[in-house]
Amino acid sequence: MSEFRRDPIIGRWVIIDAARNFDKNIPASESYPKDVSNCPFCCGNEHMTRPEILAYTDEKRRSPNSKNWTLRVIPNNKPVLEIEGALKRRAEGMYDKMEGVGAHEIIIESPDHFAKASSVKSAYYENVSRAGIDRIKDLRNDLRLEYILFFKNYGIAANAVFEHPYSQLIAMPIIPKRVKEEIEGGKKYFAYKERCVFCDTISQEISDETRIVSENDLFVAICPYASRYPFETWILPKNHNSDFDCISAKELSAYAQISGDVYAKLDRVLDDPAYSVLLHTGPLKERNLQYYHWHAEVIPKLTKTSGFEWGTGLYVNPVYPEEAAKYLRESK
Amino acid sequence: MSEFRRDPIIGRWVIIDAARNFDKNIPASESYPKDVSNCPFCCGNEHMTRPEILAYTDEKRRSPNSKNWTLRVIPNNKPVLEIEGALKRRAEGMYDKMEGVGAHEIIIESPDHFAKASSVKSAYYENVSRAGIDRIKDLRNDLRLEYILFFKNYGIAANAVFEHPYSQLIAMPIIPKRVKEEIEGGKKYFAYKERCVFCDTISQEISDETRIVSENDLFVAICPYASRYPFETWILPKNHNSDFDCISAKELSAYAQISGDVYAKLDRVLDDPAYSVLLHTGPLKERNLQYYHWHAEVIPKLTKTSGFEWGTGLYVNPVYPEEAAKYLRESK
Repeated sequence: MSEFRRDPIIGRWVIIDAARNFDKNIPASESYPKDVSNCPFCCGNEHMTRPEILAYTDEKRRSPNSKNWTLRVIPNNKPVLEIEGALKRRAEGMYDKMEGVGAHEIIIESPDHFAKASSVKSAYYENVSRAGIDRIKDLRNDLRLEYILFFKNYGIAANAVFEHPYSQLIAMPIIPKRVKEEIEGGKKYFAYKERCVFCDTISQEISDETRIVSENDLFVAICPYASRYPFETWILPKNHNSDFDCISAKELSAYAQISGDVYAKLDRVLDDPAYSVLLHTGPLKERNLQYYHWHAEVIPKLTKTSGFEWGTGLYVNPVYPEEAAKYLRESK
Repeated sequence: MSEFRRDPIIGRWVIIDAARNFDKNIPASESYPKDVSNCPFCCGNEHMTRPEILAYTDEKRRSPNSKNWTLRVIPNNKPVLEIEGALKRRAEGMYDKMEGVGAHEIIIESPDHFAKASSVKSAYYENVSRAGIDRIKDLRNDLRLEYILFFKNYGIAANAVFEHPYSQLIAMPIIPKRVKEEIEGGKKYFAYKERCVFCDTISQEISDETRIVSENDLFVAICPYASRYPFETWILPKNHNSDFDCISAKELSAYAQISGDVYAKLDRVLDDPAYSVLLHTGPLKERNLQYYHWHAEVIPKLTKTSGFEWGTGLYVNPVYPEEAAKYLRESK
């Protein structure tokens, strides 16, 4: 028989139904064209992108938009939101609208077209995370913005258009619904318990052990109790902190280590799955929240969402999180 | 430039970005195997399903689970929720769980394997809707249940496993999140305006005209102002009513007429798209709500949801609802 489980943060029920199937997709790295000479993210093709916003380099001197970078941040060519213009929030009859103001940036993670998240060194993630932090710190100065989502899609099944490894960042003038729900949920829990719901989750998971995927001194990776998707894995900092861009150098390096371990485990167990990684951090204008706790959600793309999910917001997950965690934890 | 639009019911922002692409999938009816002799839903294969719960027939006498039916309701062979057992809601540390109790039924819409929603007569929908109503009325007697979702997936891209036309019904012991949000939103709007937000939406849409897809005396079909998906179409009754199973015979027939028109239009404009239809009605134990209004949401499956949508609950829709409505409205 299936089972209902309630997410302690936002109160959403999910159905865990192990009698259902899920498909492994074809390996994500096999879904792209073989010819890579026209990749706009490759070294030497800098002229194919809009001018860079930020670049890391090992050179002493490097002119912008030239070769010899280790990481590069550029504006998205087809941005969902654009940095120029005013919001002009206004009514349209009973409705509300505003202009699509914000920022949409691409973090080209490496000059290596074939660098794979599951096999690179820890320094790679440190670099990528640092770039995210640098960009968040800079975009904080734009007072029109309320939230920044730092995320990555990997593989065509997860809507990654390019094979060359990249992350994205979308800065927006609203706090998105999902994050707002987490914050509201965290606030309610705090009002009742005077504790952070994420901190309590971490304590319980560490003592239960059954849903642990990986752990180091400063971070823990778990398959959440009420996972919506099979093999959904969250990475949480053990020290309470609502803002990703405020982490210490030590934490950054521990986060890079555990991220690498999680991707390697997913790769081994699910054969190079397509996935998305979503970094949930606090809103730009509400810092140091006692009731919110930044974390990364890693979601392998193994199931199709259907009318039932759309119509109800109730997810049916075919894999018990305890099973998923066991597979991942024990994969070597 | 893209534009943010706010849904007046639940307050969700969506981004309308006409610079993005969307794909037409292959025609939904072409995605199934050619050999239909093993279809468990076909006439003569009644033994291949679990015993029927309900059947409509033109015969004077028909023994259960025999041929000569016009519509048949059966329990799903692989139900997400099962009718037997107690809920046993309980804590698991800080978490909550309960058993997967409920009902999961299949409405086989017609004995004709190739009947297509876009070309059948209006009586067909009347039959299907009546079956949904009959089942809801019956399941209301089960006091463990809080909500019934009546829905249809069509085409493999929308997760319809069988080609033979069928709808589904899932009865559950919770009110699902999406519906709860609509109810909460409707309640807030009512508290402020003393009017139903859906009724106000209908008035504004009828006077604006730009988002109307189809209309008859008792129903209107629109592409909502803050559509999440391209060509998303809602069908709403003009008379306020929170409970689908309380509609009059006249309304039932008008609903069947407009449904047929909407499916035919979608078929013409999008070449037999896969889609889901979700009937949102009031919770079983809260009837005649002033602030809730039943409606059907028809969602063609044209885009993939990606990490960005998952991480934010913020949808990016590549088609202006006014454009979509114009295409549909004018298709003949």
